[in-house]
Amino acid sequence: MFPHRFIKPSRKAGLPPGSLVHIGEKPGEPVSITVMDYDAGDSFRELCLLDPDTISQYRDSQSTTWININGIHDTDVIRMIGSLFSIHPLTLEDLMNTTQRPKLEEFPSYLFIVLRMLSRQDGEIRSEQVSLILTENCVISLQERAGDVFDPIRTRIRNKGRIRSYGSDFLCYSLIDTIVDAYFGILESLGDDIETLETTLLTDPNPETVQTIRSFKRDLIMLRKAIWPLREVLSAIERTETPLISAKTGIYFRDIYDHTIQVIDAIESLRDITAGMLDLYLSTISFKMNEVMKVLTIIATIFIPLTFIAGVYGMNFAYMPELEWTLAYPAVLALMLGISLLMLAYFRKKRWI
Amino acid sequence: MFPHRFIKPSRKAGLPPGSLVHIGEKPGEPVSITVMDYDAGDSFRELCLLDPDTISQYRDSQSTTWININGIHDTDVIRMIGSLFSIHPLTLEDLMNTTQRPKLEEFPSYLFIVLRMLSRQDGEIRSEQVSLILTENCVISLQERAGDVFDPIRTRIRNKGRIRSYGSDFLCYSLIDTIVDAYFGILESLGDDIETLETTLLTDPNPETVQTIRSFKRDLIMLRKAIWPLREVLSAIERTETPLISAKTGIYFRDIYDHTIQVIDAIESLRDITAGMLDLYLSTISFKMNEVMKVLTIIATIFIPLTFIAGVYGMNFAYMPELEWTLAYPAVLALMLGISLLMLAYFRKKRWI
Amino acid sequence: MFPHRFIKPSRKAGLPPGSLVHIGEKPGEPVSITVMDYDAGDSFRELCLLDPDTISQYRDSQSTTWININGIHDTDVIRMIGSLFSIHPLTLEDLMNTTQRPKLEEFPSYLFIVLRMLSRQDGEIRSEQVSLILTENCVISLQERAGDVFDPIRTRIRNKGRIRSYGSDFLCYSLIDTIVDAYFGILESLGDDIETLETTLLTDPNPETVQTIRSFKRDLIMLRKAIWPLREVLSAIERTETPLISAKTGIYFRDIYDHTIQVIDAIESLRDITAGMLDLYLSTISFKMNEVMKVLTIIATIFIPLTFIAGVYGMNFAYMPELEWTLAYPAVLALMLGISLLMLAYFRKKRWI
Amino acid sequence: MFPHRFIKPSRKAGLPPGSLVHIGEKPGEPVSITVMDYDAGDSFRELCLLDPDTISQYRDSQSTTWININGIHDTDVIRMIGSLFSIHPLTLEDLMNTTQRPKLEEFPSYLFIVLRMLSRQDGEIRSEQVSLILTENCVISLQERAGDVFDPIRTRIRNKGRIRSYGSDFLCYSLIDTIVDAYFGILESLGDDIETLETTLLTDPNPETVQTIRSFKRDLIMLRKAIWPLREVLSAIERTETPLISAKTGIYFRDIYDHTIQVIDAIESLRDITAGMLDLYLSTISFKMNEVMKVLTIIATIFIPLTFIAGVYGMNFAYMPELEWTLAYPAVLALMLGISLLMLAYFRKKRWI
Amino acid sequence: MFPHRFIKPSRKAGLPPGSLVHIGEKPGEPVSITVMDYDAGDSFRELCLLDPDTISQYRDSQSTTWININGIHDTDVIRMIGSLFSIHPLTLEDLMNTTQRPKLEEFPSYLFIVLRMLSRQDGEIRSEQVSLILTENCVISLQERAGDVFDPIRTRIRNKGRIRSYGSDFLCYSLIDTIVDAYFGILESLGDDIETLETTLLTDPNPETVQTIRSFKRDLIMLRKAIWPLREVLSAIERTETPLISAKTGIYFRDIYDHTIQVIDAIESLRDITAGMLDLYLSTISFKMNEVMKVLTIIATIFIPLTFIAGVYGMNFAYMPELEWTLAYPAVLALMLGISLLMLAYFRKKRWI
Repeated sequence: MFPHRFIKPSRKAGLPPGSLVHIGEKPGEPVSITVMDYDAGDSFRELCLLDPDTISQYRDSQSTTWININGIHDTDVIRMIGSLFSIHPLTLEDLMNTTQRPKLEEFPSYLFIVLRMLSRQDGEIRSEQVSLILTENCVISLQERAGDVFDPIRTRIRNKGRIRSYGSDFLCYSLIDTIVDAYFGILESLGDDIETLETTLLTDPNPETVQTIRSFKRDLIMLRKAIWPLREVLSAIERTETPLISAKTGIYFRDIYDHTIQVIDAIESLRDITAGMLDLYLSTISFKMNEVMKVLTIIATIFIPLTFIAGVYGMNFAYMPELEWTLAYPAVLALMLGISLLMLAYFRKKRWI
Repeated sequence: MFPHRFIKPSRKAGLPPGSLVHIGEKPGEPVSITVMDYDAGDSFRELCLLDPDTISQYRDSQSTTWININGIHDTDVIRMIGSLFSIHPLTLEDLMNTTQRPKLEEFPSYLFIVLRMLSRQDGEIRSEQVSLILTENCVISLQERAGDVFDPIRTRIRNKGRIRSYGSDFLCYSLIDTIVDAYFGILESLGDDIETLETTLLTDPNPETVQTIRSFKRDLIMLRKAIWPLREVLSAIERTETPLISAKTGIYFRDIYDHTIQVIDAIESLRDITAGMLDLYLSTISFKMNEVMKVLTIIATIFIPLTFIAGVYGMNFAYMPELEWTLAYPAVLALMLGISLLMLAYFRKKRWI
Repeated sequence: MFPHRFIKPSRKAGLPPGSLVHIGEKPGEPVSITVMDYDAGDSFRELCLLDPDTISQYRDSQSTTWININGIHDTDVIRMIGSLFSIHPLTLEDLMNTTQRPKLEEFPSYLFIVLRMLSRQDGEIRSEQVSLILTENCVISLQERAGDVFDPIRTRIRNKGRIRSYGSDFLCYSLIDTIVDAYFGILESLGDDIETLETTLLTDPNPETVQTIRSFKRDLIMLRKAIWPLREVLSAIERTETPLISAKTGIYFRDIYDHTIQVIDAIESLRDITAGMLDLYLSTISFKMNEVMKVLTIIATIFIPLTFIAGVYGMNFAYMPELEWTLAYPAVLALMLGISLLMLAYFRKKRWI
Repeated sequence: MFPHRFIKPSRKAGLPPGSLVHIGEKPGEPVSITVMDYDAGDSFRELCLLDPDTISQYRDSQSTTWININGIHDTDVIRMIGSLFSIHPLTLEDLMNTTQRPKLEEFPSYLFIVLRMLSRQDGEIRSEQVSLILTENCVISLQERAGDVFDPIRTRIRNKGRIRSYGSDFLCYSLIDTIVDAYFGILESLGDDIETLETTLLTDPNPETVQTIRSFKRDLIMLRKAIWPLREVLSAIERTETPLISAKTGIYFRDIYDHTIQVIDAIESLRDITAGMLDLYLSTISFKMNEVMKVLTIIATIFIPLTFIAGVYGMNFAYMPELEWTLAYPAVLALMLGISLLMLAYFRKKRWI
Repeated sequence: MFPHRFIKPSRKAGLPPGSLVHIGEKPGEPVSITVMDYDAGDSFRELCLLDPDTISQYRDSQSTTWININGIHDTDVIRMIGSLFSIHPLTLEDLMNTTQRPKLEEFPSYLFIVLRMLSRQDGEIRSEQVSLILTENCVISLQERAGDVFDPIRTRIRNKGRIRSYGSDFLCYSLIDTIVDAYFGILESLGDDIETLETTLLTDPNPETVQTIRSFKRDLIMLRKAIWPLREVLSAIERTETPLISAKTGIYFRDIYDHTIQVIDAIESLRDITAGMLDLYLSTISFKMNEVMKVLTIIATIFIPLTFIAGVYGMNFAYMPELEWTLAYPAVLALMLGISLLMLAYFRKKRWI
């Protein structure tokens, strides 16, 4: 993916702030909303929401509710969520704009967190924007399309895992944690491919290799852009004094912060490694060129003088006394042999062969 | 545009501070002033001002007034504005000097904001300085020449958009927001061109390509210089305690701040990408040179020894027994063929062919 | 070691936080626990623990206890330690995950320190994670496998060294100090190898040299990643207000901090040196290529014209008057000699020979 | 100018602090002192001082006095100024040492400011140290030699400009402002020369061009060294709480600060541009080399096989049946033509011609 | 000197903290101690100490005492000093370890300052560690071996210079000042050598030049490492609130701070310059190679076709009508001349000759 693809809200230029305009690829499917509502006890409901208006009942209950929305291109749904949870117009605008960098915004009644869910398939990194809205009892997660990394969390909630006894802040933590954990897998696969490339570079360098190097570099620029700001987001969550996140859950956020640092570290290391690859390519090319030149030089340098001698005795002058001598031919051949051997000795001394 | 073109106040060296000297290109047209005056209700006037002195009536009214001045090269107009709104002499000097970097200056009765309005046509980036003066009820915007990106705002005011119910701070925000939104379009088009260039680099590298790379690099240096300081300006607006900007509008400025960060991010990514392009060019050239050398070497290395053999049997020695043998000629041809095949096998082993 | 090997918790993605999953190489041997318990007086016990449950008696005694655990892949042992010393689940999770970067975490009843024990054998750097848990009377150290750098400390404890009169904080300091001291040895040996490589570069540059340069660079990236965060850890220890570290011991931690800075300095210097090595390689290759080209040029440039002259007089035209002249042959030979000498003079003037 | 020329106080090593030793080039002329004394009214005196002792009368008067000293190599003059204005021995030492970097030092009774006055002639940048001492009523300016950029200020004072109604702090500001304004002119001329060089690079690259690039780089390093610290000086003046600078004048210093940032920005841009120039040179050289190689390869590759064929039929074997065929000669010529065409087609396919 | 030589305490790994082990080169001579004891009046004693125990009398007197110790490899002397002045064990350990970076440590009764005394002989920079211990009345200076830069200070003390009227803090300042002043001389000589090298690079580039560049780079890395931390030391001294340094002397330390910044500036400039030198070398090599290639190409391209023509008319076909024409030979010669001239014209057009 070419990095500037990351920003494209130009079609919105000139609209008033808070305008609900979807920016991003429009998936084929319609918007789908799923709700999981649970408490530490046995109360548990999971449903695929048909009528968005029923959300209000979960908003007001004491149990923890996770509302997951696949698809953010439907202005009506976004507006409905906005009015149900009293979301600021600028937040609603951001929800529909898939070109955000990770950020945290604190509002009196909710936290708004944007981050990027990444995956890598067939050597290409796909980036999807995930927005989280954390209120006292609810987490609303918004994805660009169906398909995510949250299934283990769904399983844990269904199986009455420890997560059931914590509140919405812990659910929010769990979602972020799962997204960050997925980064490790991407770096692992990218790192393996880079390692393979390095071997190729030394054995069979060619211009396609250069393009591969550049695409890895672009991937790393893109990862960096997607993950680096998350560091600040998490450290802001740690420092925040909002009552929406309990002290007990704060420690867990510190844990994700550590993971993010590890991911950034790994990205930087891979950047350092790919940085040197074009030089490696050039040095291999140079070395190979040198080898080629040496062979050319050796062959040419040996035969050019010999050919000259043969040329001299191919001249048609009437008076060339040597031509008549009986031993002249073997003597010239011996001379040629001698010259060749001398040259070879010189090359050996110069360490060219 | 060559970057040092950005600073050229040298003709002013030695003048006392506050001297009103226009620095920049002088447009052909005279200065024109337009005024829009509105409030949340039905009061709305839009006029093209002929007599500058009538401005005072808008200055004193309770409604919000936007005074837009196209052309800053007329000392009289600037001086008149200065005395009407009690502007500091140094501010007036800055208004007429088109080589400012974006900055915010707070004065007791007004905020002075300088930023750059950018556009890209035929691959060339044009930069125009826009100065904004925000007072309690007025926004004065000064541009170098007619033609700007503010038309959507004018339409929203005329159509009694939400903007009408906010004050001058929101108008000021809207103007900056529109300018920043235009940056996205420029980066988009620049990014597309850089992507195209990269393909050219690999298929048909030539010195003009190098010049294009350099012109992109210069464009990015220029964009960076024009946009980077805006970050500080906006974060200063966020932190400022001036009563000229209400808390409600402050949130909107945070939104532009986010956009600016996105723009800077994109510029940095494009810089990273163009940074590697000259290396890419060199590596493509190197690879092509290598290819050329290999062909030369193969041809020369095969034929030089054969030519030598032909030369030997072209010598005119009286006693060369081989010359008389019946099968000597086919034997020599066979020898030559054998040598060629051996060489080809060697090259294949070396992976040159 | 390829740097991304440093992070590999991807197999854990999706597990709930605090899940005890061993991440890292599993050593062959089972977990072994050794205990040293001592005070300033004559009380001293050293034993290899068979039954983990007996640890509780050391936990409660007033004497200082060092519990060293070789092997962190046994979930039962970790869980038992966790419950005996009331360790937070996230700490337990970190204990079993060998991909941590050095860090310090403060908990009310203990400090949790992670750092990396490094060694270099056969030119390869091995990195092992060491976790330290410092409580009021105990230090628990956890290593990935048997074999460490702590033997001198064991000897000093056995020989009733000064260390016996200090508490657990000093023991903790001593362990960290020993690990940091080992870094110097690694840098020394790495520095020697880099110095050797530089000589090779100038005398016999070849593609393997390039691979060696890259492996050194990777080693340095890895060292940097392992040691750089330690700086923050140690400066955090200095600034901490935990009662677990006495003021008297604080000075000693400042000493390790100084050592760490020295190590980082040395790593940076070696990075600076290896950074230039590929350029050095390329410049040597270039110079050699130049030499080769000069020889080729000289030989070819001298003989190509001579061979042409010989060719001319080898033509079979019926009317070539020179061919009949008596002195033509020696005259042509003299002409050839003259041309050669002229060329040589030209080359000498050009400083090619 | 080679950058290390900037520091040369080594001849002073070992002297006690406060020793008055002139460090720098000694100009031919003797020290000259001029005084301008003025107030907001009609009082104005300008004189060339013969007897230094008369300075004391200006020191004590209420009017503003500007004492300008051309030449700092006369120990007596410096010592006299020192005792008249109670200057600290270390300041006096600095006054005579022309290798200072720009700095601000606050003393209870005066501010000591060092900065560099730059000019560019015949492509060479000359740097002269200017020291300013600001007391309540006086500004003492010390230059290395006669000739400066202050003439416009002198004119404004003589013409009873606005400067006459401000105090010594405004005079001090004016002097610094004039020096900073001169930087723009230097950057302008340097930028023009760099732009010209870039064109030369692409049309006629040769080693002298490389030397020119390096001299520009050195100029920029030197400018940076001379101007960068000024930023801190000016921001320190803004923050200072000394009563020597009034709040009203403080705003003007902020203006110079802005200018300095603009200058530094421009220097950085030019550095970015010159940074890539050697690469541009190398790429042009590479491209030209490639062109040369292609011509060589095409000529050699076509003719070497043809010459071989000619050689074969130049052999003197007794039994070469082709030699007797009537059409052999035209057939061989046709074969040669065919081979040439084939080769040309191959080259065209490879895009070499 | 290879940079990693800077750290070598690996032989100490595992020893308890405070162990007195000498790390560094052992000089041949035994330790010598000299004492200078003076006050502002006439009291002055200078002696070479034979019995270390007599030091205690100077420690307790009111006069200022400078104890200079040449040689730090004698554990007994260090231990004796330690007990006389109540020095912390870690300080004693540092005194004997010559691999420290410059640092300042404050203890209640003394300041401990480490810095590096540098000299340059025969193009090699030698670095010696100097430790200073500043107590209320004493300065103890410890050097690795005899021979230092302090003689001017000794002379000033003997000659009853101003230094006699200040206390031990001023003596300490003077010692540091003298060491820093010596840095200027080293940079001057290094800068001259680098300037010379640059000329060599352009006229006669060869692999030894590359080695010289690298050794300069290493020298600069080493200088940077030795001097950079001094900046922090001096700024810490300025900020410190220890009663050991009087306010009056504080100003003098600010002066050394300025000098250190100048030295660091100069090092950075020289680094910038040497950074580009390898590129300069490569560009010169490239240019020379290009020249060589052009000559080869011109000669080969002209003569290869001519030789082919000669070869054609050297063929032995029975029926080659041209051979019998009377004017064929001069016509062929004319043809050859024509081809040569055409080629030369082409090369001239291409600007190769």
